Amino acid sequence: MKKYVYMFPEGNGSMRELLGGKGANLAEMTGLGMPVPQGFTITTEACTRYYEDGKTIYPDIQEQIMEYLDKLEKATGKTLGDPAQPLLVSVRSGARASMPGMMDTILNLGMNDEICQAVAALTNNPRFARDSYRRFIQMFSDVVMELPKSSFEQFIDQVKDKKGVKLDNELDADDMSELIVLFKDHYKKSLGSDFPQDPKVQLMESVRAVFRSWDNPRANTYRRMNDIPHSWGTAVNVQSMVFGNMGETSGTGVAFTRNPATGEKKLYGEFLMNAQGEDVVAGIRTPQPISALADTMPEVYQQFVDISSRLEQHYGDMQDMEFTIENAKLYMLQTRNGKRTAQAALKVAVDLVDEGVCTKEQAIMKVEPKQLDALLHPTFVPAALEAAKPITTGLPASPGAACGAVYFTAEEAAAAHKKGEKVVLVRQETSPEDIDGMAVSEGIMTARGGMTSHAAVVARGMGTCCVAGVGGIKVSESAKTLTFADGTVAHEGDFISLDGSTGNVYLGCIETHEAELTGDFGRFMGWADEIRTLHVRTNGDTPRDATQARKFGAEGIGLCRTEHMFFEPERIKAVREMIVSDTVEQRKAALAKILPMQRGDFEGIYRAMGGLPVTIRLLDPPLHEFLPHEDDEIQELAAEMGISFEKLKGKVEDLHEFNPMLGTRGCRLDVLYPEIAEMQTEAIISAALNVSKDGLNIVPEIMIPLVSEINELRYVKKVVKTKADELIEASGQRMKYMIGTMIETPRAAVTADEIATEAEFFSFGTNDLTQMTYGFSRDDVGRILDCYFEKKILESDPFARLDQNGVGKLVKYAVENGRKVRPDIKLGICGEHGGDLSSVEFCHNVGLNYVSCSPFRVPIARLAAAQARVKELGKA
Amino acid sequence: MKKYVYMFPEGNGSMRELLGGKGANLAEMTGLGMPVPQGFTITTEACTRYYEDGKTIYPDIQEQIMEYLDKLEKATGKTLGDPAQPLLVSVRSGARASMPGMMDTILNLGMNDEICQAVAALTNNPRFARDSYRRFIQMFSDVVMELPKSSFEQFIDQVKDKKGVKLDNELDADDMSELIVLFKDHYKKSLGSDFPQDPKVQLMESVRAVFRSWDNPRANTYRRMNDIPHSWGTAVNVQSMVFGNMGETSGTGVAFTRNPATGEKKLYGEFLMNAQGEDVVAGIRTPQPISALADTMPEVYQQFVDISSRLEQHYGDMQDMEFTIENAKLYMLQTRNGKRTAQAALKVAVDLVDEGVCTKEQAIMKVEPKQLDALLHPTFVPAALEAAKPITTGLPASPGAACGAVYFTAEEAAAAHKKGEKVVLVRQETSPEDIDGMAVSEGIMTARGGMTSHAAVVARGMGTCCVAGVGGIKVSESAKTLTFADGTVAHEGDFISLDGSTGNVYLGCIETHEAELTGDFGRFMGWADEIRTLHVRTNGDTPRDATQARKFGAEGIGLCRTEHMFFEPERIKAVREMIVSDTVEQRKAALAKILPMQRGDFEGIYRAMGGLPVTIRLLDPPLHEFLPHEDDEIQELAAEMGISFEKLKGKVEDLHEFNPMLGTRGCRLDVLYPEIAEMQTEAIISAALNVSKDGLNIVPEIMIPLVSEINELRYVKKVVKTKADELIEASGQRMKYMIGTMIETPRAAVTADEIATEAEFFSFGTNDLTQMTYGFSRDDVGRILDCYFEKKILESDPFARLDQNGVGKLVKYAVENGRKVRPDIKLGICGEHGGDLSSVEFCHNVGLNYVSCSPFRVPIARLAAAQARVKELGKA
Repeated sequence: MKKYVYMFPEGNGSMRELLGGKGANLAEMTGLGMPVPQGFTITTEACTRYYEDGKTIYPDIQEQIMEYLDKLEKATGKTLGDPAQPLLVSVRSGARASMPGMMDTILNLGMNDEICQAVAALTNNPRFARDSYRRFIQMFSDVVMELPKSSFEQFIDQVKDKKGVKLDNELDADDMSELIVLFKDHYKKSLGSDFPQDPKVQLMESVRAVFRSWDNPRANTYRRMNDIPHSWGTAVNVQSMVFGNMGETSGTGVAFTRNPATGEKKLYGEFLMNAQGEDVVAGIRTPQPISALADTMPEVYQQFVDISSRLEQHYGDMQDMEFTIENAKLYMLQTRNGKRTAQAALKVAVDLVDEGVCTKEQAIMKVEPKQLDALLHPTFVPAALEAAKPITTGLPASPGAACGAVYFTAEEAAAAHKKGEKVVLVRQETSPEDIDGMAVSEGIMTARGGMTSHAAVVARGMGTCCVAGVGGIKVSESAKTLTFADGTVAHEGDFISLDGSTGNVYLGCIETHEAELTGDFGRFMGWADEIRTLHVRTNGDTPRDATQARKFGAEGIGLCRTEHMFFEPERIKAVREMIVSDTVEQRKAALAKILPMQRGDFEGIYRAMGGLPVTIRLLDPPLHEFLPHEDDEIQELAAEMGISFEKLKGKVEDLHEFNPMLGTRGCRLDVLYPEIAEMQTEAIISAALNVSKDGLNIVPEIMIPLVSEINELRYVKKVVKTKADELIEASGQRMKYMIGTMIETPRAAVTADEIATEAEFFSFGTNDLTQMTYGFSRDDVGRILDCYFEKKILESDPFARLDQNGVGKLVKYAVENGRKVRPDIKLGICGEHGGDLSSVEFCHNVGLNYVSCSPFRVPIARLAAAQARVKELGKA
Repeated sequence: MKKYVYMFPEGNGSMRELLGGKGANLAEMTGLGMPVPQGFTITTEACTRYYEDGKTIYPDIQEQIMEYLDKLEKATGKTLGDPAQPLLVSVRSGARASMPGMMDTILNLGMNDEICQAVAALTNNPRFARDSYRRFIQMFSDVVMELPKSSFEQFIDQVKDKKGVKLDNELDADDMSELIVLFKDHYKKSLGSDFPQDPKVQLMESVRAVFRSWDNPRANTYRRMNDIPHSWGTAVNVQSMVFGNMGETSGTGVAFTRNPATGEKKLYGEFLMNAQGEDVVAGIRTPQPISALADTMPEVYQQFVDISSRLEQHYGDMQDMEFTIENAKLYMLQTRNGKRTAQAALKVAVDLVDEGVCTKEQAIMKVEPKQLDALLHPTFVPAALEAAKPITTGLPASPGAACGAVYFTAEEAAAAHKKGEKVVLVRQETSPEDIDGMAVSEGIMTARGGMTSHAAVVARGMGTCCVAGVGGIKVSESAKTLTFADGTVAHEGDFISLDGSTGNVYLGCIETHEAELTGDFGRFMGWADEIRTLHVRTNGDTPRDATQARKFGAEGIGLCRTEHMFFEPERIKAVREMIVSDTVEQRKAALAKILPMQRGDFEGIYRAMGGLPVTIRLLDPPLHEFLPHEDDEIQELAAEMGISFEKLKGKVEDLHEFNPMLGTRGCRLDVLYPEIAEMQTEAIISAALNVSKDGLNIVPEIMIPLVSEINELRYVKKVVKTKADELIEASGQRMKYMIGTMIETPRAAVTADEIATEAEFFSFGTNDLTQMTYGFSRDDVGRILDCYFEKKILESDPFARLDQNGVGKLVKYAVENGRKVRPDIKLGICGEHGGDLSSVEFCHNVGLNYVSCSPFRVPIARLAAAQARVKELGKA
């Protein structure tokens, strides 16, 4: 029969998958001879069985648990439920990765009326016995029976009031007896049955509760955000109790081997005498700093310092530990790699290498790439944030913190900004016409749209904080109001604060502070760059983007979207002229007006990139995006353009599409209107020729988007090549350039072998590829995602994290077949996934040459690429 | 060096790919010892080279042609351009498949001023010589120089007028001399150079012209409609001339071995004495029936009859022949399998089997599946059609012919129909709400939408004629006018006629006649059914569809779209109540109203299918399709539903999607609202239980649409299974049912191995799969298709003909991986491709169990499936 339970000495630190993090570390510490109370771990596989078996613990597993309980009883010489030698245990969850939101701890299990009396007699400490029992009733009710802990607090207050005292530890043994009666009564009234007196029933119900808590909504959300599969399951640790509440030589505490906020190398933590673990967290009494233990119990303190130091050396990382002192004897209850701030993470990583505790490769693995974000963007001042309560939450679409006055149109936002106001742009959804307003906003909030909606993509590109897809709000542009689900209304000019890293929205202004990059950052990222083999480029449309991204270490531009340049006021006019043209000549005339401006842009970008590769994508969006859609706007524009309302309206109607995402865009535009590709080629090549004269060696990479059929690429390539060769020849200069394509339709992926015969590079447009592979419109998918998460149909948003199982299969297929045909083909990715950790790892493993992401994600991608390489080499 | 030219004796009938149909058959007849003028064939590969080499004939090929000209000269004892022994040749194109629209024939090549004199002297027939020369000038100018033949006609008229005669053959030798002068003069004036006198130049230019004509727009259109790849190329046949215009013992004619209109076994054709081939076609003189040749030249006639009969036996099919009699000697110039009407095709096929000329398998290959359409639908009376000229042309979206009064809304069409009018519904595009109006219309015409637009799909399902996507027209519902590109306006009540098989639209009424199925049809289709292994089901949503399709031989329903039942007036109300529900309870209450109606539908369908399998798809379209979108309609409906305008408007806005095709539809609806799946399951299962009581053994197949992730299927399957099992158990009956899914997103295809663990059957929804694989919205793709055809980016509409290279690869992958996991999985296709010839063949080859198509396509699919099987067995 399969082994579902391990005594601590049977396990070790490498068995994290099976025993969970907590269980593996308890086993490891046991093996290291540290003072760990004895116990056993029920494996994660038992949890998986629980779900497979329809949320029940089958008898075979129950029997094993009882067998190991028996072993524990033999080892401790105590027995669960035996008044002569009562065993009390704690039950704690412990997944592979530390996971807030799950059931955490039940202490003092084994207590009942009889045992309570027995413990009181054995310890000669009735207060302690009864305090332990009432705590157990509370924790069991809360965690196992879902009767909230807080519902018991009224009785404590009642007894304290009667007695006229303020603190719990002012209650005596008799008061505790009274509380036990009140608690049991409350339990029975609320749940309709007596508090269970059988310790084995208590135990099995507690184990069941841990398994169940793996699937609660908070845990699910956390897993989704941290890429933890539901299938992992949690382990359960059953450990004999030691008591910090036995009196004044007992206590309990938590400590870090280094300061988790700053990284400073100094034991950091706090403890409380005569208390159980929950008291430290509850904050009723104020704990003392860990250093004070040196005075209170010098020997115990020294022992703890020694153990801390051994653990840090042993694990090669900063540790976060829990301990209990029972009658002056130290017990270790947990150790794990400590959570830390981004700043601390960098300092610890760098220090550990300097101290010789770990290698650079190991150090690289100690910083979560996502954490770097916090170093690049403004954040809320922690103290200010603590006092604030979010009014609602949306998708954390672009990181950073922002506070500003609400405006409902891009124009009004821009106007307010000019007057010196800090503004937050709030829109139903944004469109390319909002660019100017977005550029001047501190933050952007939209009611609709997902992680790759227009607002999200543009905001990330700009490094501006954005919360998107905020459900339940109503945005009225005409009334200039933002109504929250609870009925609260914010008017134009009212202040709100956005946290783009959590998706939280707050009323009023929360103070923010700017990001600062330390020397540790530079050293650490230097190591990442040494290690990684995957290149990191940026998506950037302007010289400003390019400059920003180079500062963050971008090695080129992977995606320059030419259309973003089309929206500036002086250009949009010519663009619209081009669109309403009736003849090729008219269209060419309009394009000729755009040419010098585009050329200027490209010159700026080439110069900003200083000779690094630049991939420029030909015009991509459907033309109707450049025209207004409401009658009054059409009227106005028609007058401005000197054409009739009917003509312009007719054009708008002609261009209307049922499914624009699957419509006339990308290379389809160039097939219909080759003169667009010609003009853009001229701008790209002549700009490169001009800049090359200054000694920069530019090799423009011209990217033809949305190809789904090799003939599309052939046709447009010919147009581009003809124009480019003609310009280069006329210039008398020598210049190379490349022509490649996006792989962003499933058909392009499955015909990659054909396409590679014409394309010198592939850039995987995984946004569109994800849309078409799933059949999800990224602008509409927000409507179903929450429900899909809740019902466990998806574990993560495929627009944020590359779906390796489906979309990834297409990418892999295209990589393999493209390389077969053209071994030196350059392969990259320029979807939003380029900045996502697991997606970058996928790109590394699948053999891409580079990932491209928005400027602010460049450092994340660099680190993620380094981590992927370290993993690949097995040097983690 | 590669061989690009073959003398006739070097080839044979099996070399069609290389020599083209005409060349292969000339070689074959030569081999059979029939009187064929000598000549050679330039291969299709030479044509392919011509295009590869940038539309030039490279010297290597030119040299080979000259070498073979030399051989021909040796064989005939005549020399091109030699006045002593002048060789004259014809130059004809000849592709693998007979292809109208290409350059056809140049006769008398080799003629020039000098040769004309020589021939006159040699034949002692100056009129013949000069007539031949002037014809050559005309043909060469027309075909090679693109100076229209008709531009020469004025000079003939001029000479005839001067002389006071009416017919060409009343012109004498002097008149011909005059014409030659006038023609050469016209040539020089129009083209700026003298008519080429060098016969070798004439020859090479003519070959070039044949190659060039392969790529003209008419040829391209024909190829696209008939699935002929551009890469095939055409061969060129150069043959020494024989002359039907040598005098009264010379002549020329065409004949079929059987009547091509009826199939009657009787030589059928016509001839003209003292004429060249073009005269027979031109219709200036009236040709005589072939039987008259028995009187004119009995020996030649008998020889021709013998040859005809030999050829038919030899080829095992009705032959279409061209012949020339030169000075009482018969020459065969061409034979090929004759084009015939659908009716004739069936009769010939059946007769040939009865006569023992061919096997059933061979007979099966002699009828083009598409032709069957004409037997199932009304057609225009040929005489009436001849007189008519189309005013415009759209997509031939659903076959048949129709004439009726124009109405612009479904309601008005229905009202007019009630009054007894025959109506044609004309809409910008149709939507599900138009169903009632569509059902009573003779024909449907839309300005927008492609071959798989709503109008096209529904019309094909109903067997109603439809012309869709008619560009250049303006439909005004408010003004009740239809304006054609030329400005002609049709008002409500005006008559128009539609040809759904060609896409032609006519003003006024053209007489139609009904289809009639003969006994031949039954026998022939019986053979097809014996032979084929691929099953044919139908897409049908109503008992009427089911009955119709069974009559046409459907073996089950492959797709029953439940939503089409939702639009009937008494149902749509409950559907809308369901949509605007705020709570699950409200939604369930509304669904409860729909339940009995759906159950009734399914009972009717089960009964109509008499126990054959029925696959029912759960609700598929996005819910906003059931709501109005204009404010006034919303207002009206809100009043009717007793809710506020704001509430309904809000709902409509909430449901709005940017890309509905990629939106909240298919199984996504069931995940959001499992109660919909529950209600539909109840209707499906309880209907089956009810009908089973009458002794029909029903095994409902419940199909869950738009799955892209196994967990979607798992979730909805569980809902369906729970409800189904509960109902079956409660009934006390025994009943099986199946749960399967559509494979219609690329992700479903690439994860088919996972999905097959849960799905008992796959039905490939190749409409959506094509949309997502290409990234083409089928409602919008019309905008680019023409340009894509013109620029040779696509050779066919992937929504009409399955794209085997891309979409097909995904289908194949899913078939293979699905079967690996579940070897007995049932596999079918239910996209529009189920009725397309090459697509059916693909489905057969890839190993599907069935195709499903609209009722009127069922016979086509049956025949196509049989043909695929015959091809596979190599029995063609």
